[in-house]
Amino acid sequence: MTEIELLVNVKRDDNLLLTSDRAQLLKILSQTGSLLTASKALNISYNKTWLMLEELNKGLSKPLVYKSRGGKGGGGATITDYGQFILKEYELIENHVRIFVNKLNTEINL
Amino acid sequence: MTEIELLVNVKRDDNLLLTSDRAQLLKILSQTGSLLTASKALNISYNKTWLMLEELNKGLSKPLVYKSRGGKGGGGATITDYGQFILKEYELIENHVRIFVNKLNTEINL
Repeated sequence: MTEIELLVNVKRDDNLLLTSDRAQLLKILSQTGSLLTASKALNISYNKTWLMLEELNKGLSKPLVYKSRGGKGGGGATITDYGQFILKEYELIENHVRIFVNKLNTEINL
Repeated sequence: MTEIELLVNVKRDDNLLLTSDRAQLLKILSQTGSLLTASKALNISYNKTWLMLEELNKGLSKPLVYKSRGGKGGGGATITDYGQFILKEYELIENHVRIFVNKLNTEINL
């Protein structure tokens, strides 16, 4: 079966703000606060997850997450109110895109 | 400025058939036949371009490209009729996606 998939990036001033992976990271952190859980869900190393968090806040006047290293759960992160807002908007966009891509998939000729 | 970007992947039986990069590679090859030109345009090494070509044909009953190593131009590739067909369809899909994303970008709240 041939299928179209659309990946949603949000850019700000030509820098990447959100990607599908980053949004998934934010979502898991908003539910669990655990970097270890997030790294397992995204199937990447703990260190890479940590780096993704660093990237997330880079260049933003308001952070999306607050980090805390170490501890029993292997370090954690808390989403800020601004992070929650951005995540919600991203999910709304994803919903629009999902409807569009479902329609597109009924029309392709590949 | 905040802007949404949509990347188009085409999957066949859960394997990647085309990505934005692969489509660009096919397009340049259909115009120039030169791997060197393609690697410069995509800003990747010649070897990586060669590997992308290998990936392109993998798992397909009909190849998208024929390769020829070496020579003055640094090796080349010719798109098959099937490759041309797939590329044309991909570009049609991209046109639909472009119209959709332009509309989406007038409606976002980020």
